[in-house]
Amino acid sequence: MPTLTEAELIEVGRALLTAAKIPAQEIDPVALHLADANMVGHDSHGVMRLVQYLQMVDDGFVKPGAPVERVVDGPAFCVLDGHFNFGQVIAGEGLRLALEKARGQGTATVFMRNCNHIGRLGAYTEAAAQAGFTAVMAVNAPGPGGVAPFGGIDRRLGTNPISMASPAPGGAVVLDMTTSATAEGKLRVAHQKGESIPPGLIIDGHGNPSTDPADYYNKPYGAILPLGGPLMGHKGFGLSVMLDLICGLLSGSGLCRTDLPRGANGVWLHLMEVERFLPRAEYDQWITTYIDTLKSTRTLPGVSEILLPGEIERRRRQLRESEGVPIPDETWRQLTELAAKLGATLPTIA
Amino acid sequence: MPTLTEAELIEVGRALLTAAKIPAQEIDPVALHLADANMVGHDSHGVMRLVQYLQMVDDGFVKPGAPVERVVDGPAFCVLDGHFNFGQVIAGEGLRLALEKARGQGTATVFMRNCNHIGRLGAYTEAAAQAGFTAVMAVNAPGPGGVAPFGGIDRRLGTNPISMASPAPGGAVVLDMTTSATAEGKLRVAHQKGESIPPGLIIDGHGNPSTDPADYYNKPYGAILPLGGPLMGHKGFGLSVMLDLICGLLSGSGLCRTDLPRGANGVWLHLMEVERFLPRAEYDQWITTYIDTLKSTRTLPGVSEILLPGEIERRRRQLRESEGVPIPDETWRQLTELAAKLGATLPTIA
Repeated sequence: MPTLTEAELIEVGRALLTAAKIPAQEIDPVALHLADANMVGHDSHGVMRLVQYLQMVDDGFVKPGAPVERVVDGPAFCVLDGHFNFGQVIAGEGLRLALEKARGQGTATVFMRNCNHIGRLGAYTEAAAQAGFTAVMAVNAPGPGGVAPFGGIDRRLGTNPISMASPAPGGAVVLDMTTSATAEGKLRVAHQKGESIPPGLIIDGHGNPSTDPADYYNKPYGAILPLGGPLMGHKGFGLSVMLDLICGLLSGSGLCRTDLPRGANGVWLHLMEVERFLPRAEYDQWITTYIDTLKSTRTLPGVSEILLPGEIERRRRQLRESEGVPIPDETWRQLTELAAKLGATLPTIA
Repeated sequence: MPTLTEAELIEVGRALLTAAKIPAQEIDPVALHLADANMVGHDSHGVMRLVQYLQMVDDGFVKPGAPVERVVDGPAFCVLDGHFNFGQVIAGEGLRLALEKARGQGTATVFMRNCNHIGRLGAYTEAAAQAGFTAVMAVNAPGPGGVAPFGGIDRRLGTNPISMASPAPGGAVVLDMTTSATAEGKLRVAHQKGESIPPGLIIDGHGNPSTDPADYYNKPYGAILPLGGPLMGHKGFGLSVMLDLICGLLSGSGLCRTDLPRGANGVWLHLMEVERFLPRAEYDQWITTYIDTLKSTRTLPGVSEILLPGEIERRRRQLRESEGVPIPDETWRQLTELAAKLGATLPTIA
């Protein structure tokens, strides 16, 4: 299994995207985002996506070079039509505009429609938090999804993730979670390894509880359950529905569309500039007390410490900065094969 | 058990608040809100609260007549200092201002600090949705809370609820949920009835799983668990932490305060005017398709239909409009006793 540095992961993306004749200014938004996802441990959102993304370019779903157009605009809000360029290109422009508007107006609400998979939400919200903003970001699936409503059997919703981030001394607190019981990427990993999954995450195509991820991928298709299980699943379902309405409708993306590729996103981003609301020194003092108070609780058996949202990702980045990112052989084989097809030269891996 | 109409419930509030010499303009925001909570079935947030609220007035925690002051202001945002007037008075003014700002600017972000218990969040977000806005509202507990961090034993967080609402043909879709495994009010009801609760909601003071609500109320105090259980509790905890940061810090309320009464709230309200983002007719068409698609799924055994967020409350309101609201004898006894003490005349109940 090859192990790559962050610079090498970025180089893999740049080499493949360049060879695929992606416009120069769209290469780094994608290449850097994917490498960053690997660095924090979300390999399902990392360089392995290059194979899928470039296939979607071939299939005409991803349209490199398409303009990111501002179709609705106000002082503190706007709607972008991404015309199905790469999701990272569209969301990167959305974040830039949101920062610009929120610096001017104190807050900014930005929606994005006609947008491909934007990747890991926490990357955008953390960047906003590092710049001094509290951020809320969510995406839905205006097209096909794999999650059943609470009490239902059939697939009706996306995993509809939400991310929130806020500055903290020395970094940021970053939540990034699906409103479903599990992310699809985790099922895929277990399925590829032939492993079972914990009970309570999926049902099979007849509505029976299942621990076999194959029940999700094989006909009759099973479904992912909403966050919360039998006792609290109405809450995960409720969050997912509301994110469908906010991200799908206010963006103008629509819902339940059959003309969209799997993985299309309706996007909502809201930024609030901390210093507009209270002095940063006061904010830092409160959050330090808060974190200390959370960390000071006694822990349950087997729990060594209370982890804040985003803390696992920060630690994994530190680890991977010193040890590199292991890339599964199959992923590396696919990337190498793609490079050969495109005539790209990948970095030489020790 | 007496059964009251909505008009009678309102009259109970008006009579008691008037007799307690609450300023005239602050009576209806409280009396109507509490009666409305009863009507949708959230009796823990209904007229029974009058006893607690008027006790808090006596204790000096609730300060009738205190000004609701705009301490930070911008075109699309503001912060209100409620100076510990009734939460409903402060949140009502916050909603009014948010609607005014969002009508002007398309969006509005309003925070409220020094605020008592604002009651049922869904009442405010539903009102905004009825007026054509998509709303997000959350509150935290800047003071004492009863929820343990994920993996922890001790109380560190409030139940930190979030509500989202959006217009729908003939009404609104309204989510109103705590980010904890259960609301404290539900434990209180079970405790008073001497009933046990389902496993997975609370732990006792030593961190053991418990189904006895007395373990929450008796020393050593137990704690409510975060939404999600052992498998997904990091998500409920993560949401709760982020709502603490947004509602507690950006409002200027602070966190982990020991000088605040139990039940104080930091409040965040964000409104987005639907018509700024897409024509209402288009919105209505999408949401109708969406609701039909959700409702059309096959259901799990024992489930008769898929219920949208807020649908239970709407049905309960219809039922209670025809059948009235049963008020437990003990609640009625306390209200009658309070009326006698204040020299108030309650409506005559059949």
